[in-house]
Amino acid sequence: MSSSNPLRDAQDRRLPRIAGPSGLVIFGVTGDLSRKKLMPAVYDLANRGLLPPGFSLIGFARREWEDEDFADEVYQAVKEHARTPFRDEVWQQLSQGMRFVQGDFDDDEAFETLKKTMQELDAAQGTGGNFAFYLSVPPKFFPLVVQQLKRHGLADQKNGAWRRAVIEKPFGHDLTSAKELNEIVHEVFAPDQVFRIDHYLGKETVQNILALRFANTLFEPVWNRSYVDHVQITMAEDIGIGGRAGYYDGIGAARDVIQNHLLQLLALTAMEEPAAFDANALAAEKTKVLGAVKLPKDLGKSTVRGQYAAGWQGGARAVGYLEEEGINPASTTDTYAAIKLEIDNRRWAGVPFYLRTGKRLGRRVTEIAVVFQRAPHSPFDQTATEELGQNALVIRVQPDEGVTLRFGSKVPGTSLEVRDVSMDFAYGESFTESSPEAYERLILDVLLGDANLFPRTEEVELSWKILDPIEQFWDKHGKPAQYESGTWGPVEADDMLARDGRSWRRP
Amino acid sequence: MSSSNPLRDAQDRRLPRIAGPSGLVIFGVTGDLSRKKLMPAVYDLANRGLLPPGFSLIGFARREWEDEDFADEVYQAVKEHARTPFRDEVWQQLSQGMRFVQGDFDDDEAFETLKKTMQELDAAQGTGGNFAFYLSVPPKFFPLVVQQLKRHGLADQKNGAWRRAVIEKPFGHDLTSAKELNEIVHEVFAPDQVFRIDHYLGKETVQNILALRFANTLFEPVWNRSYVDHVQITMAEDIGIGGRAGYYDGIGAARDVIQNHLLQLLALTAMEEPAAFDANALAAEKTKVLGAVKLPKDLGKSTVRGQYAAGWQGGARAVGYLEEEGINPASTTDTYAAIKLEIDNRRWAGVPFYLRTGKRLGRRVTEIAVVFQRAPHSPFDQTATEELGQNALVIRVQPDEGVTLRFGSKVPGTSLEVRDVSMDFAYGESFTESSPEAYERLILDVLLGDANLFPRTEEVELSWKILDPIEQFWDKHGKPAQYESGTWGPVEADDMLARDGRSWRRP
Repeated sequence: MSSSNPLRDAQDRRLPRIAGPSGLVIFGVTGDLSRKKLMPAVYDLANRGLLPPGFSLIGFARREWEDEDFADEVYQAVKEHARTPFRDEVWQQLSQGMRFVQGDFDDDEAFETLKKTMQELDAAQGTGGNFAFYLSVPPKFFPLVVQQLKRHGLADQKNGAWRRAVIEKPFGHDLTSAKELNEIVHEVFAPDQVFRIDHYLGKETVQNILALRFANTLFEPVWNRSYVDHVQITMAEDIGIGGRAGYYDGIGAARDVIQNHLLQLLALTAMEEPAAFDANALAAEKTKVLGAVKLPKDLGKSTVRGQYAAGWQGGARAVGYLEEEGINPASTTDTYAAIKLEIDNRRWAGVPFYLRTGKRLGRRVTEIAVVFQRAPHSPFDQTATEELGQNALVIRVQPDEGVTLRFGSKVPGTSLEVRDVSMDFAYGESFTESSPEAYERLILDVLLGDANLFPRTEEVELSWKILDPIEQFWDKHGKPAQYESGTWGPVEADDMLARDGRSWRRP
Repeated sequence: MSSSNPLRDAQDRRLPRIAGPSGLVIFGVTGDLSRKKLMPAVYDLANRGLLPPGFSLIGFARREWEDEDFADEVYQAVKEHARTPFRDEVWQQLSQGMRFVQGDFDDDEAFETLKKTMQELDAAQGTGGNFAFYLSVPPKFFPLVVQQLKRHGLADQKNGAWRRAVIEKPFGHDLTSAKELNEIVHEVFAPDQVFRIDHYLGKETVQNILALRFANTLFEPVWNRSYVDHVQITMAEDIGIGGRAGYYDGIGAARDVIQNHLLQLLALTAMEEPAAFDANALAAEKTKVLGAVKLPKDLGKSTVRGQYAAGWQGGARAVGYLEEEGINPASTTDTYAAIKLEIDNRRWAGVPFYLRTGKRLGRRVTEIAVVFQRAPHSPFDQTATEELGQNALVIRVQPDEGVTLRFGSKVPGTSLEVRDVSMDFAYGESFTESSPEAYERLILDVLLGDANLFPRTEEVELSWKILDPIEQFWDKHGKPAQYESGTWGPVEADDMLARDGRSWRRP
């Protein structure tokens, strides 16, 4: 609680938001996510003084480790991946609460050991019975782990202590499976005990959408169908599927990215102002707007799926998706998906939202571009404004986080020629504070019980409701269009926008 | 007319706007303005290929010069002050059309010589009888020179040739004298023959106000009383009166700057969209909005005049205004003036426009700041938005020309704290073209007969009508407040805004 901690003071002067007595149990602690994101995030939170003194971390996995091996593993992960400087005193304190439980997910004995370890930590570290269970495991194990937690009484909140479950996407692979999963989870945990991680929502620039829209006067008056021509939401990756063939094939880009990240970005961009900045009010608005999303009638003309073919990327030859190791050469999985949605409400009626995502595209970038209509009338010579595009407000989610405003300005010279220029706000230049990793933010929120940034059951189900008809349509109609690796996706996606008289931004 | 001229192509690709056969006569050609601004501007225009091949330049002054002396003088001025590189072939061609006429303004013989010189140039250079007379002379000589032009038939437009008069501020020192001056000028020249130079209107960023407002969708919807809290228009100088004691004392800051520059900036900022970008349509809108300007009832509370006292500036000791050479130690001339105006129309009712100008202020800067209302409601914690100011769009007229947008953004960290940040557009960074000097633009406009950027009789008279009651009030009430050189003006000016719950920007 040292209020003189420089790392904390810089970032949390106003609302220290320090977690109370608690511990975190990570299932699947030997995995990549745990090592690269979760362990460093826990350390960074401790380093910033945002964890309680007796905070405890329990790893659960099949590996034959002792507590010391686990602590060593965390140490390595922190040294390699932590955002904040290593401080020995922080490490010493944190490592006192580290335990490892060895076992399979169907191993009752291991879950009893887990229970005892938690009790031991309550006594030794003062965790007060408050534990979050982070399910960093493949989705097929979700039901098993959740049921084990129930069977061994680990989900029960007794004597004012809390128990919370953290789950990672995918939350099902369609509406039906999502509902099944939700039922299983909610048999064990109440809705306010479940935290679904969408790490995009932990990103600074995503939260900044709300600040931009609602802490300012300038943008909200034009944030509607009277002024907005359309919205483009892009998440482009330059990498291929890497070692994820087993997970990715049969899932594809739309399920992997659009269903969660892009529809959440759409919801934050399009929703009405929440009555307050709290989880219920936010969820209410996001649910409303997702419920108003309408699929165009002709899905053949308003959706495009693609699959990367061989090409050049980053100066190296890249193989096509169908040649990737572990991929069925007849696979029809989409590595690129673009869809056009409309929102059936007073604010957005008639304004298309174009969502796209893909692997092996031109470069790695995530952005939301709100593109405004052209000025209804220009008093200037037409010849003088020929090069003039449309005003656009671009929220750059990653990398190079910030905001860009594109507008027309007079070109220096003795005629009144107008040309598009940009003004930029870059997070990196405007704030000395470095941005916390999304996982820092989200883990702290879990420990605080702050559910603002976690999508709820209804949001997940509404998102599948939007995506399901598209996936079904794709299953029935043809195959994904091929696009060369390193390009910006299949030509069909360009055609889709061209039919509307528009074009994709080249971010 | 070489379309391959690189200087011209860069700046005037679309609308070459090349002047036709013509010449320029400068009265008071030995003065500072002529040497530092007019001569270099003529050369720069020639260098950019925007003047006709036989363009001619006649100097008229008392000095005992021959044509060669005059050409030498222009040569020196160009070498020292021209914006574009010196090119011998351009100079050779330009200098062929240079003549000097020696005489006093009441010297009839000299005006006859001028007439002959013009005729000689029509024959030798093909100027076609088209001449502009630039009156770069003290205002007391305006009537004399204009009447001489009439008496010697130089103002007559015969056989399709044009004659134009260019006059520099001050256009009178109050409404009565301005009307007298306008009558004298318009006895000789028709309204469309008279070009009143307000060199501020030749600045790129001033013209950009129109481009910003009317070539974009984003700004116009919030450009009104529903969203704008107030507007601040500032022209600050860091220098004192320099050698201009004789001109300045008895005139003062309000007459010297507010009456012309600042009220023109106000007009461009506040006017309705003109039906077209032409002189008549622009003048109509500027006249409308200047006619709607309302003075607050209590001028004691809505105007402030100041006089600089001694102080430090730029690391040097600066004397007070009353200690300046040539200034009456009992002078009540204002070197600082701040006034609050309102505009009585549907768009602006209730929105104050604060105008201020002064000498020996903190730094040299001219800007228009449109300050927006705070967001009507913030869903965020009050503690989290404490530091939040108001959105503002700042048009930086000089130096460092560009546009700044100030808005609230999330501070990186695990709470939702919002803080003001800025995004910038800088002319210098966004365009490779360097900005033409205001005088280049304005002289070319005179030669083309394009009156867009020249205030008309009605605008000048309306501006005096706004200022006269203030000057009369000041004459009757007390003395200017003293302010230390190098500060941002008298404390009374801060109080004036503080009474409205506002404060001046520190630009």
